[in-house]
Amino acid sequence: MSVSTSVSTPVSTSVSAAAADRSVRPPLPVLGRDVTVPLVTGGEVAYAALDYAASAPALQRVWDDVAAYAPYYGSVHRGAGYLSQLSTELFENARGTVAEFLDCRPTDQVVFTRSTTDSLNLLARALPAGCEVFVFETEHHAALLPWRRAKVTYLDAPRSPRQAVETLERALADRDPHGPALVCVTGASNVTGELWPVRELAAAAHAHGARIVLDAAQLAPHHPVSVRDLDVDWVAFSGHKLYAPFGSGVLAGRADWLREAEPYLAGGGASRRVARRADGGVDVEWHEGAARHEAGSPNVIGAHAIASACRALTEAGWETLVARERHLLERVRAGLAGIPQVRVLSLFGDDAPRVGVLSFVVDGWSSSHLAAALSAEYGIGVRDGLFCAHPLVRALLGGDPHTRGECGAPEAAPGEEPLHAVRVSFGAGTPEEHLDRFVTAVGELVRHGAKWTYRTEGGRCVPAV
Amino acid sequence: MSVSTSVSTPVSTSVSAAAADRSVRPPLPVLGRDVTVPLVTGGEVAYAALDYAASAPALQRVWDDVAAYAPYYGSVHRGAGYLSQLSTELFENARGTVAEFLDCRPTDQVVFTRSTTDSLNLLARALPAGCEVFVFETEHHAALLPWRRAKVTYLDAPRSPRQAVETLERALADRDPHGPALVCVTGASNVTGELWPVRELAAAAHAHGARIVLDAAQLAPHHPVSVRDLDVDWVAFSGHKLYAPFGSGVLAGRADWLREAEPYLAGGGASRRVARRADGGVDVEWHEGAARHEAGSPNVIGAHAIASACRALTEAGWETLVARERHLLERVRAGLAGIPQVRVLSLFGDDAPRVGVLSFVVDGWSSSHLAAALSAEYGIGVRDGLFCAHPLVRALLGGDPHTRGECGAPEAAPGEEPLHAVRVSFGAGTPEEHLDRFVTAVGELVRHGAKWTYRTEGGRCVPAV
Repeated sequence: MSVSTSVSTPVSTSVSAAAADRSVRPPLPVLGRDVTVPLVTGGEVAYAALDYAASAPALQRVWDDVAAYAPYYGSVHRGAGYLSQLSTELFENARGTVAEFLDCRPTDQVVFTRSTTDSLNLLARALPAGCEVFVFETEHHAALLPWRRAKVTYLDAPRSPRQAVETLERALADRDPHGPALVCVTGASNVTGELWPVRELAAAAHAHGARIVLDAAQLAPHHPVSVRDLDVDWVAFSGHKLYAPFGSGVLAGRADWLREAEPYLAGGGASRRVARRADGGVDVEWHEGAARHEAGSPNVIGAHAIASACRALTEAGWETLVARERHLLERVRAGLAGIPQVRVLSLFGDDAPRVGVLSFVVDGWSSSHLAAALSAEYGIGVRDGLFCAHPLVRALLGGDPHTRGECGAPEAAPGEEPLHAVRVSFGAGTPEEHLDRFVTAVGELVRHGAKWTYRTEGGRCVPAV
Repeated sequence: MSVSTSVSTPVSTSVSAAAADRSVRPPLPVLGRDVTVPLVTGGEVAYAALDYAASAPALQRVWDDVAAYAPYYGSVHRGAGYLSQLSTELFENARGTVAEFLDCRPTDQVVFTRSTTDSLNLLARALPAGCEVFVFETEHHAALLPWRRAKVTYLDAPRSPRQAVETLERALADRDPHGPALVCVTGASNVTGELWPVRELAAAAHAHGARIVLDAAQLAPHHPVSVRDLDVDWVAFSGHKLYAPFGSGVLAGRADWLREAEPYLAGGGASRRVARRADGGVDVEWHEGAARHEAGSPNVIGAHAIASACRALTEAGWETLVARERHLLERVRAGLAGIPQVRVLSLFGDDAPRVGVLSFVVDGWSSSHLAAALSAEYGIGVRDGLFCAHPLVRALLGGDPHTRGECGAPEAAPGEEPLHAVRVSFGAGTPEEHLDRFVTAVGELVRHGAKWTYRTEGGRCVPAV
């Protein structure tokens, strides 16, 4: 049994020069683009939201679609009224839009959840008895931790896409090939932004009789995802990272394991028929489709918002979006490369294709101090910490002491992590100016130090005022 | 061991005449109040949303608060930026607003979930080992079904609040008093609208060493809920029934069982520290507070919307809201009483206090036919079915054949329920005209028959066009 070890990225990396030229302005306006925030040094500045990897701002179009629908919002499913039927149709149509966005197979099922975390926990509860799970230690906790009922094999961090495939191959070769198995892998790292060789990992999984779920939380907002082309069994993503912050997520893919599983939540909507038994107990007949795992009133606005975002991204055109993001990424990487104290974190090396997510540490600075100064003195919102991927960040930092500083987590409350990084992340709504300001700000802070003093409060670094 | 068997309703039923006088106009404007819908008989009419018990329209104020916040939306928790910190503060403050709204004890915990169903499933997974559960067969499926890991005693439908307390007392007296036990009870029935004697049931539970969770999905939008006064251990409710339809719900109450339980979802946010072990496994240290059960990025907009609704209801004044709703309820009950073919469903009798939720059947009519005609010919949105409370509705209908008709569920697809009822429900945004139109419409339909013909499609009754 063998699979190809040639490694490709999920999407083509060739883009036309014309697309790159058009890519400087944000192709998709977002809410908050006119918001200004006060600086600790005086005055106000336009807020630079550079934490898209945690939660992206809402697309203006998503907001407009939600606002247009809101007066027509009604109870879904058995409501007999006009708005109830309109809302039910909108909710069910959203499944089709998502299926198209993900290029699903005709037999795939789209389940609306609350988030990627929820989607992966749902799949974890639907594993067949005796299922083995294989997951790299480099995953986000949402992909690393839900498999508590299974026998889990944690795979060591690979240092290249090829090594990732080889590592998985070896692990799968050792397993009992007759039992069910699942591989869970990210499409793009939430720490390094690096793309994972999903198609090759899927081939490896299938060659060994295993299935694969793609954590597309960081991939779907930045790249087209084709379930058919990647040949993955399931895909999970979150609305709030896809410019649709209304409490919804998606698990899409094969129906069989989900149909056989206990309903994720017990309640109305998932139950087709409930009756007292003669012995006083209760018999329940559950639905078999997506409704089986969607008990309770569906989040119609959340599903509608996700569908709106899917349409907006598709219509903007992935070639344009990818080209522009690559342009921004090259710009910020070139800028940081000019600051010798900055070390960008990477598993797969400088040449690895990646999305607009980048983490780094700065020699002599605590990451929380740097993040606080970027916010307070430049109006830039980044993130510091371990990004819910503790083993990965620790492996990347390697216990490097030069991330410590005068106002950082090392001196923070007991139980806090000793070493943090800074993450900058962006997307289709990010103006180039935000990233230019960010690079300038890091350079100024590193050269001249912070203009303000900061103190630790509850494990965070805040201006001392 | 004894508890009082005197039965009271969760709130005072005495209101001033002045409050009743002021109560005719909707005290809280909702979205969609200007929406018109087409009639199958020609023309358009203002839509009468009378399915509040399934999902209420958003309060205008909730929408305005969400719209005002939306441009400032940012990633919560470890985001270092200004909007991230503002969003984190907003999210955490929403807990306080909810705690105040529910009159929680200082040590209670407010966990944001996605819905009442989700809240009760969370509590079900947090039951201590060996916990017994006691639940009336009359509950909504969300309260009836989640307790799959426990030994459940289903209690027969009582025919009075006093009988409810006596039934629970007897069942609890039979149990092993040393083991943990939980009683789950609704505050107001989602079928009959009748209030349950929560305070007395809580006293009975506590007298027998059991705890109690209040399903306030139908109570909280209509009546003040005081955790302290009712002396319940937990309360669950949904945003979308509380005029805040953005995918959020609440479980509020005692922290101890939740602190001891496995995290509801495994992932980021719930995990404090994750590390590879020397043997290749993974060690996880979980949070202990509300975050333990809120893995994944919180639904900030959903929590903010719930907090906004809590403030709006409180500021409108419960005395005014309750008085006005009672006025509307008396009006619609008096109107239906004038139509001899109508039978209103009730467990506790005509004099039982209730909220604005009322179910009925009409002699000679299938409920789905009636609901379809109310929508198509009058622009009125009600609900038909078993309302996710199958055992209760079946007990109330008693297999009564006069709910069958020419276009009803009896002739529908296999697996559909043979007998349905119609439910009308309303609240703080309902104009009196909607209910007057509803009563007039039922009367006209019963006297003159439908003006249009209807057919069955997918188990529903729709205009034949």
